[in-house]
Amino acid sequence: MGEGKPITAAVLVIGDEILSGRTQDVNVVTIARFLAELGIDLSEVRFVPDIEGEIVAAVNALKLRYTYLFTTGGIGPTHDDITSDAIGRAFGLPVEHNTEALALLAKRYTPQDFNERRQRMARMPRGAVLIKNSVSVAPGFQIGNVFVMAGVPKIMQAMLEDVRPRLTRGTKMISRSLTVRLPEGGIAAALAAIQDRHSEIAIGSYPFFGDSATGRSAGTMLVVRGRDEGAVARAAEEIAQLARSLGVEPEAVTDPR
Amino acid sequence: MGEGKPITAAVLVIGDEILSGRTQDVNVVTIARFLAELGIDLSEVRFVPDIEGEIVAAVNALKLRYTYLFTTGGIGPTHDDITSDAIGRAFGLPVEHNTEALALLAKRYTPQDFNERRQRMARMPRGAVLIKNSVSVAPGFQIGNVFVMAGVPKIMQAMLEDVRPRLTRGTKMISRSLTVRLPEGGIAAALAAIQDRHSEIAIGSYPFFGDSATGRSAGTMLVVRGRDEGAVARAAEEIAQLARSLGVEPEAVTDPR
Repeated sequence: MGEGKPITAAVLVIGDEILSGRTQDVNVVTIARFLAELGIDLSEVRFVPDIEGEIVAAVNALKLRYTYLFTTGGIGPTHDDITSDAIGRAFGLPVEHNTEALALLAKRYTPQDFNERRQRMARMPRGAVLIKNSVSVAPGFQIGNVFVMAGVPKIMQAMLEDVRPRLTRGTKMISRSLTVRLPEGGIAAALAAIQDRHSEIAIGSYPFFGDSATGRSAGTMLVVRGRDEGAVARAAEEIAQLARSLGVEPEAVTDPR
Repeated sequence: MGEGKPITAAVLVIGDEILSGRTQDVNVVTIARFLAELGIDLSEVRFVPDIEGEIVAAVNALKLRYTYLFTTGGIGPTHDDITSDAIGRAFGLPVEHNTEALALLAKRYTPQDFNERRQRMARMPRGAVLIKNSVSVAPGFQIGNVFVMAGVPKIMQAMLEDVRPRLTRGTKMISRSLTVRLPEGGIAAALAAIQDRHSEIAIGSYPFFGDSATGRSAGTMLVVRGRDEGAVARAAEEIAQLARSLGVEPEAVTDPR
């Protein structure tokens, strides 16, 4: 509220192994939570294969549309690591050995082990700024509003820490979650009315199954999100009163996202 | 190989809860594996928020470009379930109560419980064909080459089973995976040469960390994928020989994806 236009972001997940179903992506949820903490809205995610034209098209579409673009994957030393070249093409910049990256990598390997392929990990678009990480030596890089990171989750997470101070923070989204042991179809009309009265917040409704093992009955998780703490609290209270009017005590949920 | 052009697909994940980081998507990997079994190439994935214009734009882009589009999320009874309307808009079709869906839902609820909001779950673009599921009564629907499914994983999985016989199968991708206890930078040049000799297959290279708990050393998972079983086997054998030439016995990996 009152801090200008929202700061937005997109994530581009690059890699055949995700699309083939070999690997479950876990980076998107990490980045989503990281950005939420900074008040930055993750607005779109795309997954594309290791095909240069596909990467270039997605980078161009996303970097223009959002404040920031984060990519994961494709920056290693092997032939299937084509992200740097694709980013260079998307920006119309030459891709060359970055002196600082080359120096970092040269310290990590013996001269004999520092072969042409490992030197490739220093290839970046001209003008790139390194994204260092505490796990591996090979850096990612920032060019313009695009942050190019590793696909290995542990390395990607460390790179986010290096990126953090470079990002403009937005007003943090506040959320309140309530669980009600009622089917969502039974409260949908009343919920819609609450949503209509509070256009500055968004109410999400997520049904869940019961669990015969614990004896917990089915119900609905209701998540109120917005940037105005008072508005979020008021809408959450109306939802709680709705549940009570139907004879059910709402349960507060601690994960505030 | 010899069976005409590849059958392709995209997935569109719809929902604020994924982009906010509240929920880890698990549907994409399920759909990816389901499609891989049918020889259908998952070529792109997008996540968009619960904003009608965003859904419409993504549906239009993806349904034109790929053989099939699968969407997940946004088909329940609450105000944030806007997928049906968005799909109708994308196709330029009116959205109305589907008679068959209405009859299914009417059987599930008492007349008193079958309120306007629950009847909304029967709203679909004109001409939609139902996607039934064995878990909940509320159906998804197919319109043209777009399959509109629930976001709840258990329901989504059941819907895939109903969709299966409607899909044209492609030639299944065959894969062979090998683990070598060597850093990928040390084998990257030789791997690139193997890739160059076998343009009909794709070699993916995925480094992994060692595990001090089990004493397993770091290494690289190499995945050879293609539609020609002989070509995949030959490339995998060349990789195995490469590892042996460096004094390391490759380990076969059983998950063939």
